[in-house]
Amino acid sequence: MSPLGAEIARTFGTPAVVIDLDVVEANIARVQAICDAAGVVNRPHVKTHKSPEIAKLQIAAGARGITCQKLGEAEVMAEAGLDDILISYNLLGEQKLGRLAALMRRASVTVAADSAVTADGLATAAARAGRTLDVVVECDTGMKRAGVETPAEAVALARRIAATPGLGFAGLLLYPPPDRWPATQSFLDAATAGLRDAGLACRIVSTGGSPNLPHLGELKGATEHRPGTYVFNDRMQMAAGVATLADCALTVYATVVSRAGAERGIVDAGSKTLTSDPGGGLDGHGLILDLAGARIAALSEEHGFLDLSACGERPGVGEVVRIVPNHVCVVVNMVDRLVAVRGGAIVGEIAVAARGRIG
Amino acid sequence: MSPLGAEIARTFGTPAVVIDLDVVEANIARVQAICDAAGVVNRPHVKTHKSPEIAKLQIAAGARGITCQKLGEAEVMAEAGLDDILISYNLLGEQKLGRLAALMRRASVTVAADSAVTADGLATAAARAGRTLDVVVECDTGMKRAGVETPAEAVALARRIAATPGLGFAGLLLYPPPDRWPATQSFLDAATAGLRDAGLACRIVSTGGSPNLPHLGELKGATEHRPGTYVFNDRMQMAAGVATLADCALTVYATVVSRAGAERGIVDAGSKTLTSDPGGGLDGHGLILDLAGARIAALSEEHGFLDLSACGERPGVGEVVRIVPNHVCVVVNMVDRLVAVRGGAIVGEIAVAARGRIG
Repeated sequence: MSPLGAEIARTFGTPAVVIDLDVVEANIARVQAICDAAGVVNRPHVKTHKSPEIAKLQIAAGARGITCQKLGEAEVMAEAGLDDILISYNLLGEQKLGRLAALMRRASVTVAADSAVTADGLATAAARAGRTLDVVVECDTGMKRAGVETPAEAVALARRIAATPGLGFAGLLLYPPPDRWPATQSFLDAATAGLRDAGLACRIVSTGGSPNLPHLGELKGATEHRPGTYVFNDRMQMAAGVATLADCALTVYATVVSRAGAERGIVDAGSKTLTSDPGGGLDGHGLILDLAGARIAALSEEHGFLDLSACGERPGVGEVVRIVPNHVCVVVNMVDRLVAVRGGAIVGEIAVAARGRIG
Repeated sequence: MSPLGAEIARTFGTPAVVIDLDVVEANIARVQAICDAAGVVNRPHVKTHKSPEIAKLQIAAGARGITCQKLGEAEVMAEAGLDDILISYNLLGEQKLGRLAALMRRASVTVAADSAVTADGLATAAARAGRTLDVVVECDTGMKRAGVETPAEAVALARRIAATPGLGFAGLLLYPPPDRWPATQSFLDAATAGLRDAGLACRIVSTGGSPNLPHLGELKGATEHRPGTYVFNDRMQMAAGVATLADCALTVYATVVSRAGAERGIVDAGSKTLTSDPGGGLDGHGLILDLAGARIAALSEEHGFLDLSACGERPGVGEVVRIVPNHVCVVVNMVDRLVAVRGGAIVGEIAVAARGRIG
């Protein structure tokens, strides 16, 4: 057991979700440099950390505003003094639109829409706030997530937004599949041509995804990027080839609580800590460090079941191990605080302030 | 959209995690009656609700104390006045043992152990508390979770516990696999015979699992049961044949936020609400009510992707739908509050007070 592992267990107990601030800062600097070199604005997605403290590190390094996936995240960030907020989500319903109007009074906000219903609702929020709300049209270029499916639909929705009192058409929001960058270019070229014909200025073309960072600058017309996971990284980013183990800033410290069988063990990080997120088909529920050959073969709520059959040095009960999660964004969302370390020492805790917000 | 769905969305926004108190109370009464009829003490597992309010409903209906899976759950329950607490988990490490000593001073606590390392640690907590700590030996009868693997190991650990100053051997803790009740009987018979030979009284034989409720009373020697999920139920309990849809007290209310394609849609409940828990191999990520033929085919963090290809009446953007989760225990763990309804009306909120505790 490392001295740091022992100290974390003694101070906080396990499972503890720990970030190395040196690695966080290196990740922030590296991706800011990639965006700067590509001439693309960096608008990091805060869904990964949900922490105003970390968002402020991103801004200090050169990011231009932030991206939020929920209104609740945007509210927490604005409360902490962050501004220039893009909410990349269709906001619907009276309760959300009332909150959006309140948010608009204290921060500069841009919102996504992929339907007339969403756009019409946003207009009621703008009216209530007494301000113009900038709206980007969300476009699907192959992921089959949110977003209109064709350039013609994008132009039609942009026209509707531009014609709606209280709304301003601001541009397009994309999440290009990493392997479909050329198809995304075709979509974007057709949409921007249609917008030009309609006399609509397209100020923002926003792309997303940490796995797309190697492609930055390739999409002609893109103005900004919304990387999220890069701030901490995880096994998925390693599998996508955009991070190494040294770039993974977050690890879960867990204690071996049972060694009932010779070839198996149990750690105190289960699905209520690591989550059941398969990470797009990775082997096991996280990568155990310092225990070569061990696999997290299965999870129950508070148990991680270790297969130690291929593990040379098998851990004893009470040993503290470190785990790199499959998908870091959902693990951060399980806890109220992250333990922060630097240079092998505990330096404090960081609140996951926007966790647990409804919508 | 139902009037209740509209009212919940208007009051709380979506995704909202909602429990019907009439169904909760019926579930509590039904399972208490099953335990009473079987002559087995009911010691419900609070991991499902993490709420002292609901634990008190279970006690008021006749439960004898509660079961917790984490020390943090036990602390919150004791703080709220619950007593007679079984922690069915190996507690290890200086931080946890200090907290356990503090907990022992204000509540009657029994703890599980499956190794000498755990038992020896528990003795330090007992010494610090200046009280005797009752310990049950956790036994694995086929699930390959925590627990000693053989009756001989159970007896040996019981002897060690009985011989350790500050500890009292209280009995055995089992989680019988639903299909291996006879093997569990053999294990238990051999262990109790060994304990008798060693002159050790076995006051508690605790079994667990809502799926085992139909077998209650079959295991000769069992004294108490620890059902958890029955209080809310979910798709897993329906699949196990121990609950019907009418017994499912918890539903997630979600809004359709996108209908970008004719055969697909998106709701605002993703893996940060429904979790990625597959529920033991169920089809899709939850059961959508009021939308026959729709499937939650995939999740991203804040999106549930609906396959509507087999759905006759397809929902519009803004519509509110209800979802029965695959596994309710992990969904409750995602939120700080549950919305409580009764007779089709909102009656308040219930705090998930023990959520987010480390260990």
